[in-house]
Amino acid sequence: MTAIRVVAFGGGHGLSASLRALRHSARDLDLEITAIVTVGDDGGSSGRLRVERDALLPPGDLRQALAALAADHPAHRLTATLMQHRFAAMTTAARESVVGRGPRLERRADRSKDTLAGHTVGNLLLLGLIEMLGDPVAALDHAAEMVGAQGRVLPMALHAVGIEADVVHADGSRETVRGQHSVAVAEGRVEAVRLDPADPPACPEAITAVREADWLIFGPGSWYTSVLPHLLVPRLAEAIVASPARRLVTLNLSPDKETIGLSTADHLAALHWYLPSLRVDTVLADVKWAGEPEPVRAAAQELGAELVLVPVAVADGSPRHDPEALGAALVPVLGATR
Amino acid sequence: MTAIRVVAFGGGHGLSASLRALRHSARDLDLEITAIVTVGDDGGSSGRLRVERDALLPPGDLRQALAALAADHPAHRLTATLMQHRFAAMTTAARESVVGRGPRLERRADRSKDTLAGHTVGNLLLLGLIEMLGDPVAALDHAAEMVGAQGRVLPMALHAVGIEADVVHADGSRETVRGQHSVAVAEGRVEAVRLDPADPPACPEAITAVREADWLIFGPGSWYTSVLPHLLVPRLAEAIVASPARRLVTLNLSPDKETIGLSTADHLAALHWYLPSLRVDTVLADVKWAGEPEPVRAAAQELGAELVLVPVAVADGSPRHDPEALGAALVPVLGATR
Repeated sequence: MTAIRVVAFGGGHGLSASLRALRHSARDLDLEITAIVTVGDDGGSSGRLRVERDALLPPGDLRQALAALAADHPAHRLTATLMQHRFAAMTTAARESVVGRGPRLERRADRSKDTLAGHTVGNLLLLGLIEMLGDPVAALDHAAEMVGAQGRVLPMALHAVGIEADVVHADGSRETVRGQHSVAVAEGRVEAVRLDPADPPACPEAITAVREADWLIFGPGSWYTSVLPHLLVPRLAEAIVASPARRLVTLNLSPDKETIGLSTADHLAALHWYLPSLRVDTVLADVKWAGEPEPVRAAAQELGAELVLVPVAVADGSPRHDPEALGAALVPVLGATR
Repeated sequence: MTAIRVVAFGGGHGLSASLRALRHSARDLDLEITAIVTVGDDGGSSGRLRVERDALLPPGDLRQALAALAADHPAHRLTATLMQHRFAAMTTAARESVVGRGPRLERRADRSKDTLAGHTVGNLLLLGLIEMLGDPVAALDHAAEMVGAQGRVLPMALHAVGIEADVVHADGSRETVRGQHSVAVAEGRVEAVRLDPADPPACPEAITAVREADWLIFGPGSWYTSVLPHLLVPRLAEAIVASPARRLVTLNLSPDKETIGLSTADHLAALHWYLPSLRVDTVLADVKWAGEPEPVRAAAQELGAELVLVPVAVADGSPRHDPEALGAALVPVLGATR
């Protein structure tokens, strides 16, 4: 029996939750996992690398996906932890701790130029690999080998994109907000999301993975800035629609800032709005967080999907997916193809 | 038969040449290699990391030793090449190349703040590992595993040190020069080299390696700033003198800036000057570059050593060791212990 080929779309923490869940599912199913990652991040370390170094791709979301797929072997886990290590700003305490330690150089040191603070080791490593090899896919494949990744990580496009949105404020005024970070934290209702440029080059290996997949998984994640952008890359959207794969949507547990006012059913309607020809087979939602099931079930049916309500949130009551519970919930869904 | 335990002292390119040669010797001999690396570097990327981030250790020389010991497997070699990759300054051409590529963000980008230029990926990776683990030996052991290192890399002291020297100028005036980089490029004759602090904590694992070694190898390398500093760490020097190991000195091929005016024989005399109780078994010199053999042989005999003259330079006539030739020359020397 060949492996079940699963492609997970997203970015950031949502995609990590999806990938960690799939790692759990892979204990019961033979899965071949590919993550296709948004490339719109312009905040924090990734944003700085785009501005300062013309980073071909913002590495942050790619790094998080690699860490989520890292093997359990202690050396691989340590490399993954190193990739996630963020250089903290030097504190006064840290500065003082070295006064007694080092030679004159340190005692005279000027740490006002602490330019590494805020960067993660993995972002710098991916930046270096991509600069060195010139080929982002080869770079990601090598980084994946360094952490023993149980799957492949690919970008949704071959260069960084901008994300912009029309936002309607409470007083009815409209505004165009530019940049993924600004959209994600915009006060107001997001009306239309666009990529800049509107037609970035898709990653050929990602197109192939979509074509050959058994399952395509969308979400969880920031709906406008991590989940929908894939549907806005024209060649990738075409491949998604044309793929013989089944399609699964994993819904978020609670709205985040960019989706305040958006109901769970509205999330599904947004998928249809941005890619009307998208059909979905299964919508997975948490039995407790989804709220009234009927509107969600109706919205799922509009996409052609069956709603599966299961407990997939962590036990402490916070709106986070539990990788083990989500992984267990995915097993009967993904396994039913065979 | 147990492995021959070899400890190589040095820093920078000289130590790399020694380690690459030992990798060649290891095809004929069962070697267990440990590199003990100077921690005085205050130039370039390492110097900036000391000033800006209070780097516990200057990573550059440690990184070079790791790269020299990297395994031949393509994935390990690529990781080693990545560690050695230095972020180039963004050129106008590089900046213009992205104008047509990216979204508005890049087109408006301000690259005047390109703060990564000059750093190597490996320096940032070692900095992150040491900050994260707090234990430089654990950090180096993990970095060694990442490149499949055929040996262990240890620092000569547990924190960065300063190197200073009294320098006598051509007009007879004297000056104290502070900082490894300044000493290495000082105009004038270096008279006395000191560490700051004078008694840095030695690395316990390095002391153990020296105690248990079959061979201790000094040089080639920048004599005052890479070879002699080990003899100035009191506890390390004690261990070197007390070790039952045989001792080999590999001489440089030609003087560098800091040793202008120093003959080949003077290099050997300097070892005696800084650590009078040091006895040496073998001095290895290039048959062509060593010049008149008699003064060198006499200086070797002062240390108790036999002079071995062999061709170990590269064929193109430049003053660099050929790793394969040096490795072949080391085989009968190191193998003779058994």
